[in-house]
Amino acid sequence: MFTLEILCVGNELLSGITINTNAQWISNKITESGGFVKRITVVGDDVNEIASAIKESIARVPNWLILSGGLGPTYDDKTLQGIAIGLDLDLVLDKTAVKMLRKSYARRSMNYELDEVRLKMAKIPRGSIPIQNPIGTAPSILVEATPHKTKIICLPGVPKEMEAIFLESVLPQIKNTIGEFYLKEGSFEVTAVSEAMLAPMLSEIVESNPSDYTYIKTHPQEYSTENKPRLRIQLVAKGKDQNEVEMRYNTICNTLVEEIRRLQGEIN
Amino acid sequence: MFTLEILCVGNELLSGITINTNAQWISNKITESGGFVKRITVVGDDVNEIASAIKESIARVPNWLILSGGLGPTYDDKTLQGIAIGLDLDLVLDKTAVKMLRKSYARRSMNYELDEVRLKMAKIPRGSIPIQNPIGTAPSILVEATPHKTKIICLPGVPKEMEAIFLESVLPQIKNTIGEFYLKEGSFEVTAVSEAMLAPMLSEIVESNPSDYTYIKTHPQEYSTENKPRLRIQLVAKGKDQNEVEMRYNTICNTLVEEIRRLQGEIN
Repeated sequence: MFTLEILCVGNELLSGITINTNAQWISNKITESGGFVKRITVVGDDVNEIASAIKESIARVPNWLILSGGLGPTYDDKTLQGIAIGLDLDLVLDKTAVKMLRKSYARRSMNYELDEVRLKMAKIPRGSIPIQNPIGTAPSILVEATPHKTKIICLPGVPKEMEAIFLESVLPQIKNTIGEFYLKEGSFEVTAVSEAMLAPMLSEIVESNPSDYTYIKTHPQEYSTENKPRLRIQLVAKGKDQNEVEMRYNTICNTLVEEIRRLQGEIN
Repeated sequence: MFTLEILCVGNELLSGITINTNAQWISNKITESGGFVKRITVVGDDVNEIASAIKESIARVPNWLILSGGLGPTYDDKTLQGIAIGLDLDLVLDKTAVKMLRKSYARRSMNYELDEVRLKMAKIPRGSIPIQNPIGTAPSILVEATPHKTKIICLPGVPKEMEAIFLESVLPQIKNTIGEFYLKEGSFEVTAVSEAMLAPMLSEIVESNPSDYTYIKTHPQEYSTENKPRLRIQLVAKGKDQNEVEMRYNTICNTLVEEIRRLQGEIN
């Protein structure tokens, strides 16, 4: 199983000021491509918190750890420092990263002097690879954590910058490792059937199908005006073989529909 | 410092199907009341993942750990099992919780038989306290983790149910412990000033103010049509004394505005 973790850094995510759209966007892209996000963690702009979260994550040996946030020039941008402490690496001024900064400023016809504050964005953990930020300023960095070879990518927190670098430099690598992958998804709403009524059949379906590649979730909705339970049922089938996935999806769908009709019949 | 962690359970949060509005809503309420959310974790519907995340969290000794999701009757609702494993407690059928289930069904004029599937929602970790779900079915549970007395509350994943129980049974306890608290917040947008330009002044401000109770964040926006950097600056001051908070907020605001004018003057 190809597993990933996401670590988002930013006080604004812990105070409820900002909703974590980055984590959702990234997990969506990964799931569509056949990867499994095993955990999402959010910590504040605190170098020790970042370092601990990184150490804990790589101890769980995901294939990738995707970080987002904390790469900028301000006092609260501490992700690179966190990586350095977490992986016990020095921070070094990287020539390629400096060139990337110059390129970013030149793109906007800015001839900023690369002072201490700006150069902070080019001080990266020894052995990591900087990646040009095509929209904003701070380069991303890619570093491999020994001994389990977890790939760690640090992306900016600004959504457009994060998305651009992820699509250009991360997703192709992930897709390449996973290979062929197919996902079929659908959802439907039913009335007069509750979660508890459907629970035994759901267990049966899940037990007789490859559990990591089949997903059925019931989302209870508000009761109908006739005071009947309402459910939204979500079904996902995935796998490497399109025909097998389609067949599995359709078989489960038919089983569910039959059971729902039976249950509704029992009530009426 | 009064600290909390949030643990959200649900595959749908790891696959990007659902955005984690619960975590944002909870952290917002806590921050407004003077508490500090130190970490948000999301794990899937996997009993071992839930148990590990709980153990890791209580080892960091927050005052509260707030869980959301996984309390229902279906195969993938595993939070109570996760608590039992994580805290090494038995699951026992609780009479009060059974009464709560009956009350929930009666509220909707449902005379469901309390079969094995439904009774699962009343099998709670030994020593925990069930809390009536005023909207849905599954009771919440409150349990204290020894030896550090972290209070653990398990809330439903359905937002309306979660919010109702949180407001009724959790927030008053938190507010009561924290006591008097005041928060002032504002944000403004500036053009022609970049994060890097403002960084030294931000560091100065943060160093000369109580850092846990003062928050300044710069959010880079898209460049203006004249190709100038744009920033949204967010300022939060909080504390127990309203006058002190107001004064601190205003002083920082004035310092920032002066610095921004100076920087804009330098450019023009």
